[in-house]
Amino acid sequence: MTFPVGLNRVLEPAGVLPQAAWRLDARAEIGADEVRIRVERLNLDAASFRQLATKHGGDGAAVRAEVLEIIGTRGKMHNPVTGSGGMLIGVVDEVGPESPLPVKAGDRVATLVSLTLTPLAISDGLAGWDGMGEQVPAAGHAILFGRSVVAVLPEDLAPELALAVFDVCGAPALTDRIVRSYAGAAQPVTVAVLGGAGKSGSLALTAARLAGARTVGVVVSDAERETLTAAGLADHVAVADARDPVAVSSAVVAALGAPATVTVVCVDVPGCEHGAILATASGGTVIFFSMATSFPAAALGAEGLAADVTMLVGNGYVPGHAEFALDVVRRTPAVRALFESRIAAH
Amino acid sequence: MTFPVGLNRVLEPAGVLPQAAWRLDARAEIGADEVRIRVERLNLDAASFRQLATKHGGDGAAVRAEVLEIIGTRGKMHNPVTGSGGMLIGVVDEVGPESPLPVKAGDRVATLVSLTLTPLAISDGLAGWDGMGEQVPAAGHAILFGRSVVAVLPEDLAPELALAVFDVCGAPALTDRIVRSYAGAAQPVTVAVLGGAGKSGSLALTAARLAGARTVGVVVSDAERETLTAAGLADHVAVADARDPVAVSSAVVAALGAPATVTVVCVDVPGCEHGAILATASGGTVIFFSMATSFPAAALGAEGLAADVTMLVGNGYVPGHAEFALDVVRRTPAVRALFESRIAAH
Repeated sequence: MTFPVGLNRVLEPAGVLPQAAWRLDARAEIGADEVRIRVERLNLDAASFRQLATKHGGDGAAVRAEVLEIIGTRGKMHNPVTGSGGMLIGVVDEVGPESPLPVKAGDRVATLVSLTLTPLAISDGLAGWDGMGEQVPAAGHAILFGRSVVAVLPEDLAPELALAVFDVCGAPALTDRIVRSYAGAAQPVTVAVLGGAGKSGSLALTAARLAGARTVGVVVSDAERETLTAAGLADHVAVADARDPVAVSSAVVAALGAPATVTVVCVDVPGCEHGAILATASGGTVIFFSMATSFPAAALGAEGLAADVTMLVGNGYVPGHAEFALDVVRRTPAVRALFESRIAAH
Repeated sequence: MTFPVGLNRVLEPAGVLPQAAWRLDARAEIGADEVRIRVERLNLDAASFRQLATKHGGDGAAVRAEVLEIIGTRGKMHNPVTGSGGMLIGVVDEVGPESPLPVKAGDRVATLVSLTLTPLAISDGLAGWDGMGEQVPAAGHAILFGRSVVAVLPEDLAPELALAVFDVCGAPALTDRIVRSYAGAAQPVTVAVLGGAGKSGSLALTAARLAGARTVGVVVSDAERETLTAAGLADHVAVADARDPVAVSSAVVAALGAPATVTVVCVDVPGCEHGAILATASGGTVIFFSMATSFPAAALGAEGLAADVTMLVGNGYVPGHAEFALDVVRRTPAVRALFESRIAAH
């Protein structure tokens, strides 16, 4: 048995996964389970671009030269300082006969796995890019493995909107799955979303309601409360500091009448673990989507509170998550408007 | 609605949970849902004792004086430098009429929640302790809240054995629960335990087998392989470095014929997330019990590998976990022998 995760593309060191590799083989010929993309645009990770721009004092030509150097040396756009990459947009060029990916030649797609593990070759010297921004017009090719994640860009939604939705598409899909796993329980399912006014939070709230749950969005400020209330995406909206366990659990209980069946953490600040645990009913589930989550704080917190709750590491991959998230946005004009106003504000 | 987690015992700062509090109220009078314990012995956390012993250059009387000072000032044994506590053994003195805890007056018990959140008062000046070790004979009282975790010490097992089992009792209980959640699936359930020769690992392997799973224990050395093979606790034993994703997943697939339904991580070193994810079948579950688990490495790793696996933060609390773990040990002489040989080696 082989693992279709690109091990054959790893040049050095041998035997590691593509993300951990120093150098990948970006040859254009594809294996039976691979897909080749004709690249149109790279979206550099914000932290990566900032590091490069700072290093070169805003000299765009120097930034461009270093990006070309990184891609040429490593066979992928993997910033060795920040460890981050980004994603890309392109058109499917060729699909191997054994590829399980749901794409065909000619599809315009976005890759939803990091550039840090995607074999990439540039053929135009990035001539169309001034090195001054994260959006990089580019010609060349990239390779997707058997196990990869790619989404077809929809024709009915602006690419910027689709990309913003793809960026957080794991949250609504996993929330939907977990809420439905409680279907048939004696009590109606309730869902609390900490950080309910944000991108992942508003999609999680919407998915929870579409799955039949009664919901409360917990937000940090009166301004966010007004935004979320006006959008009408939650049955209740409460203001509380997600880092204050007593405040957040009291707010959830006041809104729902009891702790939540499912609590979804979408607040990207440290220290939200105990409030989420305390806000969740016995037998319930906490889904942690925030990268600021502390594993020991969650594990030891639940133990110290004698809380019989299931705690999930929010896996950003759920089969069909990109299509699911687009569908949530299509069905819910208010969440679409929220996303569009964020994009317009940029 | 109130949360029975001891908020009424918090003196300062007001409104935080007992573990976060600087000072608790350790009065002996109990509330309706509280339990008072007559203390016999404190087991100081190893990191806390080491810090105190080092600070005082091995002067036992000074260590004793500082422990008394901490408990007197804070109303709990919460080392302000290490942030850690320990646990205690004692006899149940009084049970409030509304306590949900499964204990009665006269039971000899061990507390399974940290001393950092347990109201505690000492009445004998720790006269029976020389300040030279983590085991502290003590007289006084401690308070348990409505939501707390306490286990009755069994009469048929040595206290040292029971305490060693209690220390890791969440692992077998949660493993059992997850394995049984897959019962009725088309495929027989298989379980891989990374770190299968250790305390939590050997109990997880045993619980998985008792729940009907076919198991593989992954260990780091030939010596551990021989120990685990001789004990006969797993259907297969494989040697691999759990930090090497390709090695560990290949070893699991070689042993089981396919990736595992459930993978349990009991290896307390960083970097085991990707191997565990890759060793797990699509639709399977990874349970992370190691405190060295990196939340972002798990979340981003699964996404990068397009792995549809459920990832659980190993909650150390499962109702009935202490009794369950003792029962596993009683039913499995080989795992009992493994624990007893570890205790004897100390």
